[in-house]
Amino acid sequence: MNRSQLVAEIFRKKTFLCVGLDTEWSKIPDHLLSTQDPVFEFNRQIIDATRDYCVAYKPNLAFYEALGPNGWISLAKTIEYIGHQHFVIADAKRGDIGNTSRMYAEAFFQRMNCDAVTIAPYMGEDSVAPFLGFPGKWAIVLALTSNLGSQDFQREWLEDSRLSLWEKVLVKTQEWGSPENLMFVVGATHPEAFIRVREIAPDHFLLVPGVGAQGGDLAGICQHGLNKDCGLLINASRSIIYASNGADFALKAGEEAKRLQSEMEKILASLLHGV
Amino acid sequence: MNRSQLVAEIFRKKTFLCVGLDTEWSKIPDHLLSTQDPVFEFNRQIIDATRDYCVAYKPNLAFYEALGPNGWISLAKTIEYIGHQHFVIADAKRGDIGNTSRMYAEAFFQRMNCDAVTIAPYMGEDSVAPFLGFPGKWAIVLALTSNLGSQDFQREWLEDSRLSLWEKVLVKTQEWGSPENLMFVVGATHPEAFIRVREIAPDHFLLVPGVGAQGGDLAGICQHGLNKDCGLLINASRSIIYASNGADFALKAGEEAKRLQSEMEKILASLLHGV
Repeated sequence: MNRSQLVAEIFRKKTFLCVGLDTEWSKIPDHLLSTQDPVFEFNRQIIDATRDYCVAYKPNLAFYEALGPNGWISLAKTIEYIGHQHFVIADAKRGDIGNTSRMYAEAFFQRMNCDAVTIAPYMGEDSVAPFLGFPGKWAIVLALTSNLGSQDFQREWLEDSRLSLWEKVLVKTQEWGSPENLMFVVGATHPEAFIRVREIAPDHFLLVPGVGAQGGDLAGICQHGLNKDCGLLINASRSIIYASNGADFALKAGEEAKRLQSEMEKILASLLHGV
Repeated sequence: MNRSQLVAEIFRKKTFLCVGLDTEWSKIPDHLLSTQDPVFEFNRQIIDATRDYCVAYKPNLAFYEALGPNGWISLAKTIEYIGHQHFVIADAKRGDIGNTSRMYAEAFFQRMNCDAVTIAPYMGEDSVAPFLGFPGKWAIVLALTSNLGSQDFQREWLEDSRLSLWEKVLVKTQEWGSPENLMFVVGATHPEAFIRVREIAPDHFLLVPGVGAQGGDLAGICQHGLNKDCGLLINASRSIIYASNGADFALKAGEEAKRLQSEMEKILASLLHGV
């Protein structure tokens, strides 16, 4: 899915919600455990319940890898079930030397048919660039992440440039990609940082995790993070998919997704009307 | 495999070679393509031919993920075939928020039965620490990587500490783990850096990629990188497993592994005799 298609979907559906499919075996409701593929069955019902309220899904690879080869089968079925109307992000945090990153890019873009992969930038240009050569596909590079550990290295100030490391990542990676194939991860737990992000990267889409279970604030982020094309994909995982752990899990997931979509609809209306 | 077992194996077998299993479908010799699982069959023959000359194997996850669920099946069979006498490193470059890193740790340590996983440090403490809580298992954190992109962020000087980023990673992660559960990746393409690495981390094992196809120099690395327990795992991937692309691929792989083992035997003898 390219940028203009993504932007069109956001304004058509009045939502910039991304639903995180962090499907953990131990949290699947009991009544699904007797089905043939409980992870896929859980995802299928979550997708049916939330599809109208989101533009993107973000399966977190760790939760599928933890199940061995079967986890990859459940993931492949899930991505196929999502279909082409939603933007699919493999939240994989990959990144390696050039020939290896190329293999990861082929794995996620060609074999798994994802639209985007999250990338850790530590290894630099040749670890990121191989993800930028597929038309309509995206690298989503970690800039400032939502977790406590983001203070350990990302917030270090660099001597030469007077930028922090996460700012340098924003600056440097723009030499390798464009707003048509490159997004950034900026955690919802740092709302104040969105002002600075938009100074450095006014046009790029930002994937924003940390709303919901991690406590990030939607209105605060949008105030500083929105651009004319919306420019945000706000992810919520646990607060949606585990809204209930009973037989009504999908119903409750749909309600939570709808609640977030309603907030986003108001925010987009303000954007369109310049309020 | 814990540290004392690893050190014992190194001095018993007189080698600190790690064979990288970067098994690429397009490079598998033709006569194996008709077997039921060509990737596993290739790996099995490589392992049989090199097992006596190395202490570790390092499958690179990208090459298995690129094959979808079947790739994970080939990988699981490969790890089982390697058995418990070798140190198995999942070269996966993982790292995510705490609850997700825990899932990756379970995937690689418990389900896949690997001894170690390579970790990208960008997300800080809670992305690394979950890999440090499994007895006999290891996190191998990227410090200074072998690729050209290592200059983009890793070599930046930090304002407060007067350390480069990769030095800061060495310093900071030692607050989270010990030489019993933490190693570092230092690329063979920076032999001069091993002096500095040993000032900051004298006791830790280092995983050293970049010997062979990437051009690193074994003697230069050992001169500055060895410690009393050896402290090095030198990885070669392509120069061994693709030493020949014909029916004699395993034979040639064994010869190249044996050549490296012979060099290492001399180096270890010098170490033991203080030459």
